[in-house]
Amino acid sequence: VHDSYGKSRVRLTKVTRNQNRHDLKEIEVAISLEGSFADSFISGENASLVATDSIKNTVYILAKNHAIDTIESFAVSVARHFVDTYAHVRSASVEIAEELWRRIEVDGKTHDHAFFGANQEKHVARAKAVKDSVEVESGIQGLRMVKTTASEFWGFIRDRYTTLPDLKERIFGTSVIANWQYSSASPDYQKTYEKVRGLVLETFATHHSLSVQQTIYEIAQNALAQVDHLKEITITMPNQHRVLFDLKPFELENDNEIFVTTDEPHGLVSATVRRER
Amino acid sequence: VHDSYGKSRVRLTKVTRNQNRHDLKEIEVAISLEGSFADSFISGENASLVATDSIKNTVYILAKNHAIDTIESFAVSVARHFVDTYAHVRSASVEIAEELWRRIEVDGKTHDHAFFGANQEKHVARAKAVKDSVEVESGIQGLRMVKTTASEFWGFIRDRYTTLPDLKERIFGTSVIANWQYSSASPDYQKTYEKVRGLVLETFATHHSLSVQQTIYEIAQNALAQVDHLKEITITMPNQHRVLFDLKPFELENDNEIFVTTDEPHGLVSATVRRER
Amino acid sequence: VHDSYGKSRVRLTKVTRNQNRHDLKEIEVAISLEGSFADSFISGENASLVATDSIKNTVYILAKNHAIDTIESFAVSVARHFVDTYAHVRSASVEIAEELWRRIEVDGKTHDHAFFGANQEKHVARAKAVKDSVEVESGIQGLRMVKTTASEFWGFIRDRYTTLPDLKERIFGTSVIANWQYSSASPDYQKTYEKVRGLVLETFATHHSLSVQQTIYEIAQNALAQVDHLKEITITMPNQHRVLFDLKPFELENDNEIFVTTDEPHGLVSATVRRER
Amino acid sequence: VHDSYGKSRVRLTKVTRNQNRHDLKEIEVAISLEGSFADSFISGENASLVATDSIKNTVYILAKNHAIDTIESFAVSVARHFVDTYAHVRSASVEIAEELWRRIEVDGKTHDHAFFGANQEKHVARAKAVKDSVEVESGIQGLRMVKTTASEFWGFIRDRYTTLPDLKERIFGTSVIANWQYSSASPDYQKTYEKVRGLVLETFATHHSLSVQQTIYEIAQNALAQVDHLKEITITMPNQHRVLFDLKPFELENDNEIFVTTDEPHGLVSATVRRER
Repeated sequence: VHDSYGKSRVRLTKVTRNQNRHDLKEIEVAISLEGSFADSFISGENASLVATDSIKNTVYILAKNHAIDTIESFAVSVARHFVDTYAHVRSASVEIAEELWRRIEVDGKTHDHAFFGANQEKHVARAKAVKDSVEVESGIQGLRMVKTTASEFWGFIRDRYTTLPDLKERIFGTSVIANWQYSSASPDYQKTYEKVRGLVLETFATHHSLSVQQTIYEIAQNALAQVDHLKEITITMPNQHRVLFDLKPFELENDNEIFVTTDEPHGLVSATVRRER
Repeated sequence: VHDSYGKSRVRLTKVTRNQNRHDLKEIEVAISLEGSFADSFISGENASLVATDSIKNTVYILAKNHAIDTIESFAVSVARHFVDTYAHVRSASVEIAEELWRRIEVDGKTHDHAFFGANQEKHVARAKAVKDSVEVESGIQGLRMVKTTASEFWGFIRDRYTTLPDLKERIFGTSVIANWQYSSASPDYQKTYEKVRGLVLETFATHHSLSVQQTIYEIAQNALAQVDHLKEITITMPNQHRVLFDLKPFELENDNEIFVTTDEPHGLVSATVRRER
Repeated sequence: VHDSYGKSRVRLTKVTRNQNRHDLKEIEVAISLEGSFADSFISGENASLVATDSIKNTVYILAKNHAIDTIESFAVSVARHFVDTYAHVRSASVEIAEELWRRIEVDGKTHDHAFFGANQEKHVARAKAVKDSVEVESGIQGLRMVKTTASEFWGFIRDRYTTLPDLKERIFGTSVIANWQYSSASPDYQKTYEKVRGLVLETFATHHSLSVQQTIYEIAQNALAQVDHLKEITITMPNQHRVLFDLKPFELENDNEIFVTTDEPHGLVSATVRRER
Repeated sequence: VHDSYGKSRVRLTKVTRNQNRHDLKEIEVAISLEGSFADSFISGENASLVATDSIKNTVYILAKNHAIDTIESFAVSVARHFVDTYAHVRSASVEIAEELWRRIEVDGKTHDHAFFGANQEKHVARAKAVKDSVEVESGIQGLRMVKTTASEFWGFIRDRYTTLPDLKERIFGTSVIANWQYSSASPDYQKTYEKVRGLVLETFATHHSLSVQQTIYEIAQNALAQVDHLKEITITMPNQHRVLFDLKPFELENDNEIFVTTDEPHGLVSATVRRER
């Protein structure tokens, strides 16, 4: 019914040396190919296989001549390479996750060649190439945020399974996954990424939330309204609960101050919003 | 375009006490609902929402009256509950992962109430209920296996991107993910799981492999041939390379004895095979 | 005041081929050296440094000529190598963690060359060599166990910080870490490991526990009483709570059946027991 | 020979509301007690035990009345509480790890109540209280840094185990662990933390490194020279290698541009430097 294969967790560091000013890219690449590989599965006759070791080599070779100025354009190059080079490769999917290194500041200036890890958050890109076209998607993975007020949750279904009280004041903690597609063939990937990321942060901070659902929709609406070339955006947010610790047994009051931080269980809400034509 | 929400990482232990002989089930459940929830996203009007806290409660409540003899039947119960109870819930997806606890042996007998962790491997199940039907899928996650011979890889495409030599003898290490669907409405889930798992182990051990692809197909073929009620099976296997350590600089020979164990990069091969009618 | 350096996460697979019957060892090694390395720290003059890359090479080279029948004897060999080869290396510490691969069974027989991952549990060993002696320690890491009865906890201090009720019946879940030292210079490492591991499992299963503390002491006592050549043993056990889910709001009873499985917070108890002379 | 027990992974969120400006602290606490607990181990007589559940409660109760302005002062309070409250508790050790939340910026201003995850790096503190004194230690965990030049490694021992060439130019990637003790009883913990952290970043960036060892010593020296009240500092740095990818087989040159990013194996170097009186 279906088969595919490829190489995952291909990790690459590229240093670009513009005189003394160095750029650093650290990416992890996963490649998956579809095509006429049936013989390999059925009889172990491997003549149609690009070895996954060669797939890995290809990533490093292509990195040599590609600036990797954006991970999106590099994902497109790698994906195109496989469908262009091998007639029997029907499609190539390439996923890239980029570490967010930022320059260390020394005496108020960003340093030429020293960087620190800015977050566990990653910038991601996906390209899927077929013979005559490529689809590109960009995203944010693991942007953690917390707000300590301006978040409510009430008015939900109250039946025999319900114990949660109406909450007019709660902490809202999450770790955003956002992925978007483009309506233009040649968008400015980096600028789009920065604008969407900024809007996620700003909307989360300033929006008075009546539910995780509403915050997701607000972020999506703002992104579609304010960022050019965005066709659609999918946002997924866990609700990483901070649970009020019960201080009553100790004759103390807990005025929304002391919480148990939890990872599990967590709510998980997702929505895809597409721009109307 | 799309929205869904639910609760993830709901962890549950159920002890069933048959006199002195206890059964232990430890599961992690994720529930996702689709339906008429647009108001919550658009205006924060939550009247249509089942709170994810109530979703969590429901899992524990249903566990009370369900034997959880199989995770598949419990997944079906939980999924059905949501579409049956709430008219506006169009579909409910439930994923369950089960820890493999086995009885400790004392004096050659399995103990009545003490268990040890048999593997990091998990038994998984998924049920997706809509108003008048349910689809069920079962699976294995993370069954690690290694074979030290009877694995070759050669005859693949050799072009300017290729450095891998033909290998007539290699170590084959992997961690299998397998998922299958049923052609019958009331299969014996537990027996099917045990048979498929046994076949994965046995086929991996006895099949002389010319490629990961061929081993996957062989396992799938054997499962469809020997296990009743199997409609289709998807098998995904990473190729977790053991790389021959180069002992030549030290004037020693390495006759396929000493390898560097690696996790990354790794090949990743996947195929879905469906029974022909 | 102190300095040391070395190489960590050196991963190695060794296949020993006795005709058709293969043995498989997969280990992860960490080496740490102490000695006269001050110049390297103070002035970057590296003439006294064994490069950590050479330390890594050494592990693979020594593995070639060592049977690695036990990880303890290999740890001793590697540690001895560094203090014997380099006059200025005062001590060498080697830690090894071994994956528990077991043979796949086919038709009731263990297979010659195919293995599966028996547990996430690891067998560990440590050797610390100085010029004229070596200390050896062996251990178990991450042996997960649960018992569903025969565990109580009551009679503890009850003051204003206490809310836990006395528990005459609770689930006891844990993940044991055990490490032991030897009173003999040439013990049978593998046999000792198997006996201690068996006693941990058996004692956990059969001992009626009044506290995690008591279970730890019972295991340690049994190990010292029944295993030869054991000088002392340290056992550390988290108390991975299963918390009774409150079904009262739903007018259901919870007769020690339905629990929330948790990882955090967890109790953590540790004791070292030494044999009296 | 030794016993201790306590509670680990106690996670706590504290929100301090200064009018509209909120402060957020998220910490994970581990407490370990030593004292006269032998009865509990030997006979299961628990009258001397503070239940680990009560230990957990105590953390939340103390958090209510402590500003948690610094994690060091809170660690001291918690540790002191146990030795002061219970005569038979000989010592109490408290470890705290703090998430680095930073304020989201909106229109160039830091937001009053919305925060994002600044790094996977953590700020840590440890306090060990005995009856009449407390020792305090502070630290940094997991501060990731990379520099793309100004790092060499050559002149090390070259013998039959050596294959690494002399490197006059290499990438230096690491993830720093630093821990320091104080020479003053009431230092400014927060200011010290910020100064040490700044010096770690700045020294890493500007120091021309001849070895990881030398960089560690340079950081330690700078910290002791420039930060008041520092008694000693321990710095541990893995050498997370970026390995030059061999492009020669593809008739391309690799002028220190394209590297394989690796986590394992890695060098690991550690030193403790104490201020001379």
